[in-house]
Amino acid sequence: MSTTTLPSSTAAIVLEAPGAPGSVLRYAHIAIPTDLADDAVALHILAAPINPSDLSAVQGVYPIQMAPVAVTGGSAFPEGTTVRVPGFECAAEVVAVGSAVSDIAVGDWVIPNKGGFGAWRAHAVVPESEVLVIQRADEAHSLKVADAATMIVNPPTAYRMLRDFETLKEGDVVVQNAANSAVGRYVIQMARNLGVRTVNLVRDRPEFDALAADLTSLGATAVIRDGDLDALKGWFAEHAPQGARLAFNAVGGASAARMVEVLGKGAHHVTYGAMSRDPVPVNATALIFKDIKMVGFWMSEWKKQASREATVEMYDALVAAIRAGEVIGPEFEHVEVPLSLDDATEERQAEVVANVAKAGSSFLGKKILLVFPH
Amino acid sequence: MSTTTLPSSTAAIVLEAPGAPGSVLRYAHIAIPTDLADDAVALHILAAPINPSDLSAVQGVYPIQMAPVAVTGGSAFPEGTTVRVPGFECAAEVVAVGSAVSDIAVGDWVIPNKGGFGAWRAHAVVPESEVLVIQRADEAHSLKVADAATMIVNPPTAYRMLRDFETLKEGDVVVQNAANSAVGRYVIQMARNLGVRTVNLVRDRPEFDALAADLTSLGATAVIRDGDLDALKGWFAEHAPQGARLAFNAVGGASAARMVEVLGKGAHHVTYGAMSRDPVPVNATALIFKDIKMVGFWMSEWKKQASREATVEMYDALVAAIRAGEVIGPEFEHVEVPLSLDDATEERQAEVVANVAKAGSSFLGKKILLVFPH
Repeated sequence: MSTTTLPSSTAAIVLEAPGAPGSVLRYAHIAIPTDLADDAVALHILAAPINPSDLSAVQGVYPIQMAPVAVTGGSAFPEGTTVRVPGFECAAEVVAVGSAVSDIAVGDWVIPNKGGFGAWRAHAVVPESEVLVIQRADEAHSLKVADAATMIVNPPTAYRMLRDFETLKEGDVVVQNAANSAVGRYVIQMARNLGVRTVNLVRDRPEFDALAADLTSLGATAVIRDGDLDALKGWFAEHAPQGARLAFNAVGGASAARMVEVLGKGAHHVTYGAMSRDPVPVNATALIFKDIKMVGFWMSEWKKQASREATVEMYDALVAAIRAGEVIGPEFEHVEVPLSLDDATEERQAEVVANVAKAGSSFLGKKILLVFPH
Repeated sequence: MSTTTLPSSTAAIVLEAPGAPGSVLRYAHIAIPTDLADDAVALHILAAPINPSDLSAVQGVYPIQMAPVAVTGGSAFPEGTTVRVPGFECAAEVVAVGSAVSDIAVGDWVIPNKGGFGAWRAHAVVPESEVLVIQRADEAHSLKVADAATMIVNPPTAYRMLRDFETLKEGDVVVQNAANSAVGRYVIQMARNLGVRTVNLVRDRPEFDALAADLTSLGATAVIRDGDLDALKGWFAEHAPQGARLAFNAVGGASAARMVEVLGKGAHHVTYGAMSRDPVPVNATALIFKDIKMVGFWMSEWKKQASREATVEMYDALVAAIRAGEVIGPEFEHVEVPLSLDDATEERQAEVVANVAKAGSSFLGKKILLVFPH
């Protein structure tokens, strides 16, 4: 918990220009400012998950800029090349604070509170306003690193989508596709905690029964193969003829359209992802006669609009639920990023980049957590 | 203005079962109750427009039931057959009132205030709660019959859509397709009265320039061929780079999608019709990153939900605007329905039915007004 001397450069996964993750990402060392500004905090980033939005940003199709940094060495880029650090999400331990920083102390754990943070680096120095404390130094180990590192994108998305569109009552029904995604699993658990039923669509697969049992253990009311419209309609006919109050769509296309069919009058259909990249075909009769509202949700935009108080209140609720075990995070495969240039052989560099790029091969594949060791 | 003795039957355009308008509609005489209940009003229907929704109801694809009545003669249906009278909209003169009716007097003009009114008949007897007075006997001739008969569907639709989704400021922009429809023409005029600009999409046609001049004379800011995305985007780039606050969609499919491209952040895209029958393709990026809200509007549902006070307030505003000439209704082709069986030769019957069915051949064709003479 003592103040650490910051190195003048640190390990990062970076890109110079957008493109396919497997082609454009590189391991490199990047510069760290040596003077700590009065309002700055110096961070050791503990871990950063790889989210679909990160890979969209790498591909240049996500409307948030990544921060520019200068390469100092250790990669194919010449020293001084300006590159960008991807990564919206991480958990970091504070290793030094500027002279005017009073609310954040060395040893605290923080998470980013801005878009385009640049999480895929072992160290960062940022203004204190760009982070939120989620664990004080004296609360050490009450949160797991993986849970802390994944607090920004997925749990808040599930939390807000369950609250910002409909006032749900006990017994109401939410339907969602990609129910096995990280957001989907948080939706299942948070809905269960609210007494709200969830109907969960997942793509058919050999291990469907095991997956269904897993989601059921988290509190899923029903798990149905996405595409089996008869089963979906049948469940609603039997258990909730009034239809669902909310649909959460991360897929698009036909999957999104099927959920429209089981929505109740006046319900919201919320799109937060687009795995299939297909537009959602919406029947005019659903809009006009059933008053279905097709809307989107973007966590980054919510954060931009929300007051710091509203943001802190939400994180307090989320951290409390996770600490209490009321909400359990997903499992991760850890990919360790070598800190020293000596350890970063060409083979290790290539392996790390390949693992990062692999994370994008399927939204529902194994989640990858980049880990930055001390 | 004296109380008229009601006949025991009256002329109507009816159907026994849903189907293609040209096949299932018949001229017939139908029964009228001979005793006037205390709360009833007896009406001579002056005129009834034929709207797309009426023809959808005739086809059995509109979710509002038409009232059952008994045939008394004059058609291919045997006497006593139960048939249904289409027609959601009309203006009627009150010819008699029940003993408990105090707010409505003989000579007043009324319009329906319920779904499935059954307007395509020369006379009707209904509870006073099912009509709204729009012109008192002593205000006679301050409204044209055609304007009075078309107060229920189109002007309120334009009025509500301009008010219920966005708080428009002077200079804001609304984009709409099918801008030459009756609703479209009311939108143009009411937006102009609010200081709101309209960008109006109409299908290309030989007389495009004349149509554009006509809409411009009503107050259209711009008239653009639907399908010319470059022209549409070009107009916004030059005149309103912040995009439109609202889109009104009566077409669906690609036309609906083009309007999404010129909406501003957080704007509403409102579907109120589906001429093309194609679903509205909803792009995930528009929902997520531009926060576009794809919703529907249905006047019948608004009326069901609204208080009588809110409804009366709206009609007062609409009638005042129409009386003042601030809003001008569309032109109609009149189709006179013969009242007496002697006049209703087989040829006349066939001609009337053919004209009604023709009204459905194109949403943008000549509007037809059924007229029921004394």
